[in-house]
Amino acid sequence: MNEIDVFLNQPAEWLRTAGANSDIVVSSRIRLARNIAGYPFVQKLVHEQQDKIINLVEGAVKNSARLKGAYYFRYHHLTELDRQFLLERHLISREHANEKGEKAVAITPNEVVSLMVLEEDHIRLQAFQAGFTLLETWRIVSQIDDELEKTLDFSFSPELGYLSACPTNVGTGLRASCMMHLPSLVLTKQVHKVLQALAKLNLAARGLYGEGTQAIGNFFQISNQMTLGQNEQEIIDSLERVIRQVVEHEREARQYLRDKRKGKFEDQIWRAVGTLKSARMIASAEATQLLSLIHLGIHLELFPADFTRQDVNLLFLLIQPAHLQKLMGKTLNSQDRDIARADLLRQKLSKLTL
Amino acid sequence: MNEIDVFLNQPAEWLRTAGANSDIVVSSRIRLARNIAGYPFVQKLVHEQQDKIINLVEGAVKNSARLKGAYYFRYHHLTELDRQFLLERHLISREHANEKGEKAVAITPNEVVSLMVLEEDHIRLQAFQAGFTLLETWRIVSQIDDELEKTLDFSFSPELGYLSACPTNVGTGLRASCMMHLPSLVLTKQVHKVLQALAKLNLAARGLYGEGTQAIGNFFQISNQMTLGQNEQEIIDSLERVIRQVVEHEREARQYLRDKRKGKFEDQIWRAVGTLKSARMIASAEATQLLSLIHLGIHLELFPADFTRQDVNLLFLLIQPAHLQKLMGKTLNSQDRDIARADLLRQKLSKLTL
Repeated sequence: MNEIDVFLNQPAEWLRTAGANSDIVVSSRIRLARNIAGYPFVQKLVHEQQDKIINLVEGAVKNSARLKGAYYFRYHHLTELDRQFLLERHLISREHANEKGEKAVAITPNEVVSLMVLEEDHIRLQAFQAGFTLLETWRIVSQIDDELEKTLDFSFSPELGYLSACPTNVGTGLRASCMMHLPSLVLTKQVHKVLQALAKLNLAARGLYGEGTQAIGNFFQISNQMTLGQNEQEIIDSLERVIRQVVEHEREARQYLRDKRKGKFEDQIWRAVGTLKSARMIASAEATQLLSLIHLGIHLELFPADFTRQDVNLLFLLIQPAHLQKLMGKTLNSQDRDIARADLLRQKLSKLTL
Repeated sequence: MNEIDVFLNQPAEWLRTAGANSDIVVSSRIRLARNIAGYPFVQKLVHEQQDKIINLVEGAVKNSARLKGAYYFRYHHLTELDRQFLLERHLISREHANEKGEKAVAITPNEVVSLMVLEEDHIRLQAFQAGFTLLETWRIVSQIDDELEKTLDFSFSPELGYLSACPTNVGTGLRASCMMHLPSLVLTKQVHKVLQALAKLNLAARGLYGEGTQAIGNFFQISNQMTLGQNEQEIIDSLERVIRQVVEHEREARQYLRDKRKGKFEDQIWRAVGTLKSARMIASAEATQLLSLIHLGIHLELFPADFTRQDVNLLFLLIQPAHLQKLMGKTLNSQDRDIARADLLRQKLSKLTL
C-alpha cells in the first residue's frame, strides 16, 4: 500500500461535486509558472540544485496555510505506475510523469491543488474546481502564490513580469483553462468551426491530458496561449467570455438534437450503454468515448436518478490503465486491462437497465 | 386478415426444425424449371394464355397428393406487402414478387414446397428442408414433378431435356442449393478464398435472397450453375461434395476462433447482444448481421439452453420489413420500421442477460 493509494477510492473534489454549468464545463483550472531566483532554469540545474529546490519548495508548502495537509511526493519514492496514476488524475503533466530526473509534487488531500516541482519551470502550481469557476479558482491559486512568496524568492523582472523557461509563460505565468464536454457539437459536426474560431482568438483546444493529446470522449481543454501583455484578470475575463459562448453553442446543439433528432440521438446513447454493458474487452479510448454518451444520457434524464454525472466521472478515472492496475492490485498487460476494464464497466453500470 | 397471414406466427418447417449440420447448413433447396408444351415462354404469353396456365397449374396442384392442402394464391388477390412477405419467407423470388403481370403461387401449409407460376418459366417448383439434406429434398421435388406430369404436358426435347426460357436452365431444369451460415470464415477472412474456389467449380454463391443479393448476416446460398450435361443425381452429388468441404472449413475456423481467439470472439458476440438489446432504431441489414453472431453464440453455448437457434431463425424472419408491418398490423415507413424492429428485438432477446 502506497501513500498515493489514498486517492484511489474516490475522485478529486472537482469530479465529486457539481459547479456552475458543470454539465458542459467539467472543470476550471488555473496554473501558474514560477521559478526561484538565484537558480538556473530546470534544464540547466545540476543534481544538488535539484535537491535544494525540492527541499526549498517543501519548506514553502509546509508554511502555506492553504496547503495544509498536502502530501509531498519525491519521485524517487514513486513507481512508474504511481506517476501514471497521478497523470490520469490530472495532478501532474505527461512530461512530469515520463521524463527522467529528480522531481516532486505536492497535492492537497482533496486534490484541488497540486504543485509540480521541476517540471518545465521550478514550480507549476495548479488548482481545479468543478464547473465554470475560473475566477474562484484563480483566487485559490493567487492566495497560495502569495503564501509561497513569503518563503520563496521568485524570479521577476519589472518589465516582463515573472520569468519562465519558455517565452510563452513569461509575464503572469498564468494559464487558465476549462475542460469542456461538447458531445452535441461533435455529433452535429459543428465542433471544428468552433475550434477554428478559438484558434483565431489565440486560444488553444487540447485533449483530456493536455498538450499534444487528442480529444477523446468529446472532451476539449480550452485555454489561453498568451501570458504576457495582459494582467491575470484580463486573461481570465477574455477566456470566460469565449467559454460562455461555447457553452451556449453546445446548449443549442443539445436542444436541436433533442427536438429534431431525438430518436437517433437516444438510439446512439442506448447503444453506448448496450456496448458498455456487454463488451468483454474494451480499450480505454473506446470506453471513454462511450461514457461520454452516457453523460449525455444523464443530461436527457434517460437513466434512474440515482445514477449521476459523478458516477460517470468516477468511471472515467477508474478505467484508465494505472487506476485499473491499482484497483486490481497487480500489473496487467494491455489485453488483460481491456478485460478488467470491461468487467468493471459491466459491474458499475448494472443500475442502467436497457 | 389475409389468408397469407396464417404463415405469420411461425416460421417454415425448415426453420423450425434442425437437420444434419444445420448449425452451418441452414437449409437445402431444390428447384425445378418447367414449361407447359403448346405455350410460348413467359415473355411471349398473351393475357388469356397467362390465365389459362394459371388455371391449368391449379388443376395439377389439386391433383397432387404431395401438395394436398396447398394454398393457391393468384397475384391479383395479393397486395404488394403480401408478395414482399412471401419473398422474405423465401417462398417466391424477387422477380416474381416485383414484376408486373398476372402470376400465382402454390404453397404447402408447412412451407416446405412452393410452386411459382409464370416466373421466368411457367413453373418454378421448389422444396426446402432444414440442414444438409439435398437428396431427401430432391426426392420431394421429384415426386411432385412426377405427380404434376400426370396432369401437365411439359416441354421436353429428347436431345436437350426439359426446355427453359433461359439456356442455363435447359436440361434437368434443376438448381440445387444450400443456404450456408459461414460467420467464422468471414471473421477469419477466409471466405473470399472459398468463394473463389466455388466459382472455379462453376458454382454460384449468392446472398440470402438469391441472385443479385448481397451476403448479409454471413449467409451464402451456394448452388450449381449448370443444368445441362449432368443428370440430377450427378448435379446433387457434386454439389454435396463441395458443400461438405465448406462445412469442414467453417468447422475448422470455428475451432480456431474458439481455441485461439476466444476472448475477442466472445467479445464480438456479446457486443452484438448488447447492441440488439439496447438499440432504439435498427435497420434490417444491421440486425441480420448481429443476429448472425447470436447464432454463433448459441453454437458456443454462451446463452441459456432455452434460447435456441430456432428462436433466432424466427427473428431473422420477423425483423424483415413486410413481416414487421404484418406483425404491427399497419404500414410503416422506413424510420418507423427501424423503431418497431428495435422494440421487437429488445422484447424477444430479454432471455439473454448480459
